[in-house]
Amino acid sequence: MQIFKEIGPLKQFLRQVRIQKQTIGFVPTMGAIHEGHLNLIRAAKAENQLVIASIYVNPTQFNNPSDLEKYPRTIEKDIEQFTSVGCDVLFHPTNQEMYPKPSLLKFDFGGIDKILEGAFRPGHFSGVGLVVSKLFNIVAPDRAYFGQKDFQQFKVISQLVEELEFDLQLICVSTTREADGLAMSSRNLRLNTDDRNKALILFQSLNYAKEELLKKTDFKKIRKEVQQRCAAIDVKLEYFELADRKNLSVLDSVKEADQAVLLMAAYVGEVRLIDNMFIED
Amino acid sequence: MQIFKEIGPLKQFLRQVRIQKQTIGFVPTMGAIHEGHLNLIRAAKAENQLVIASIYVNPTQFNNPSDLEKYPRTIEKDIEQFTSVGCDVLFHPTNQEMYPKPSLLKFDFGGIDKILEGAFRPGHFSGVGLVVSKLFNIVAPDRAYFGQKDFQQFKVISQLVEELEFDLQLICVSTTREADGLAMSSRNLRLNTDDRNKALILFQSLNYAKEELLKKTDFKKIRKEVQQRCAAIDVKLEYFELADRKNLSVLDSVKEADQAVLLMAAYVGEVRLIDNMFIED
Repeated sequence: MQIFKEIGPLKQFLRQVRIQKQTIGFVPTMGAIHEGHLNLIRAAKAENQLVIASIYVNPTQFNNPSDLEKYPRTIEKDIEQFTSVGCDVLFHPTNQEMYPKPSLLKFDFGGIDKILEGAFRPGHFSGVGLVVSKLFNIVAPDRAYFGQKDFQQFKVISQLVEELEFDLQLICVSTTREADGLAMSSRNLRLNTDDRNKALILFQSLNYAKEELLKKTDFKKIRKEVQQRCAAIDVKLEYFELADRKNLSVLDSVKEADQAVLLMAAYVGEVRLIDNMFIED
Repeated sequence: MQIFKEIGPLKQFLRQVRIQKQTIGFVPTMGAIHEGHLNLIRAAKAENQLVIASIYVNPTQFNNPSDLEKYPRTIEKDIEQFTSVGCDVLFHPTNQEMYPKPSLLKFDFGGIDKILEGAFRPGHFSGVGLVVSKLFNIVAPDRAYFGQKDFQQFKVISQLVEELEFDLQLICVSTTREADGLAMSSRNLRLNTDDRNKALILFQSLNYAKEELLKKTDFKKIRKEVQQRCAAIDVKLEYFELADRKNLSVLDSVKEADQAVLLMAAYVGEVRLIDNMFIED
């Protein structure tokens, strides 16, 4: 795996790749690589001739300085893992390379960035939009791969690509889960044993709610039950919502199961986790 | 000159151009082509193997619906003029092509978009950022050419290119003027004979102020004189400012002449005109 830390040499390398008419698949990450990331690389390898991953913990998308500081950084192990699945190129820039001047530009996505994650993490999606735009313009991939675990992020990036006419295809890869169902996340590394057990409440709540919704149980009743189950084990639920999969507008009930998604965020100990699940028969 | 109205076929054409390793120079315009635009084409032709212009009156950058409605549209004549200077390609999309869905995304440039033009045209630079991002992603030029007449626009687009890492070079081409000094502008077409004479006050004011500044006259005194001269002929001055050429922050006096610029906007009759001038010895 070739590693680039600077934009200039990377661009020069990728120009040669394009001249040889190779397609480029791109997997942007913040490192602390787990099986979910590796599945993104595998998906990219299946569809492209060259696969490039990036590892960059982007400060502008962290509304909480402590979350930024404590975000796991495991670069040596990350490189090993990417190499093991045949990732061709890694872009691993410094803050100085990505933000040589303080950033002033902000994105307002006009709605989808204010709800759910956006309501609890002001400015988060603006920072995501900024770094993703930078990375897309640096890498200029044919296809870019994101995990369904961050479904709202995927929707925001879809709007970004559509509205700014980025010339690439976005692919949403389904969430990779631990054996017991916990959605893989870099933040799981920060859970102690007790909290790791409690964290399963997210997957269990989503499963429970999905089953009940398909039995036509009222969503408000379902949410109340989920709130109580979380409270009982001292997990601080931030939101538990049913939404339209197209635009994430909040729903009261499921009209067509293939258009709905359940989304949630909760603090397990000091670690904020998110998960979501599509409703389908 | 080849004319494209749709994004898909244009992109396909430009891919072939790139495979042949031809450099692409891009001149985005809103039409009503005058000698200023033609000088942008000439500058692009001198540095690139293929030159593409666009004509698109972008609704999202008009804060005033009447200004949008009355913006001159002279497409037949525009095509003739572009052809006469050897422009290779014209992109002339419809609103449906550029905005298939209503636009939700907004840009906040964090300061430079709120002053001068931005103070009088709320939302203007967000719309500029949006359409320029779209066009840059569609055309993917090596170089893009803008006129100094819209100097604040050039600075905003410079920030956009820098912060989003667009892979292109921006070129600012000096303002083309009529024989008497009036900055060429598509909006000049809307001036009646009387207002056309009055419009010269912009160039005259900038010249007067520059001379006085180089003589170390106090800027506030200069501005007062300019305000009076405009009022005397019923020209409604919106702003007349001295600013730092780097970031357009407003100045009280000229410290280094090569870093300062005078900028102004005024209504001549119903037509809003802008102009600017660099201060140099």
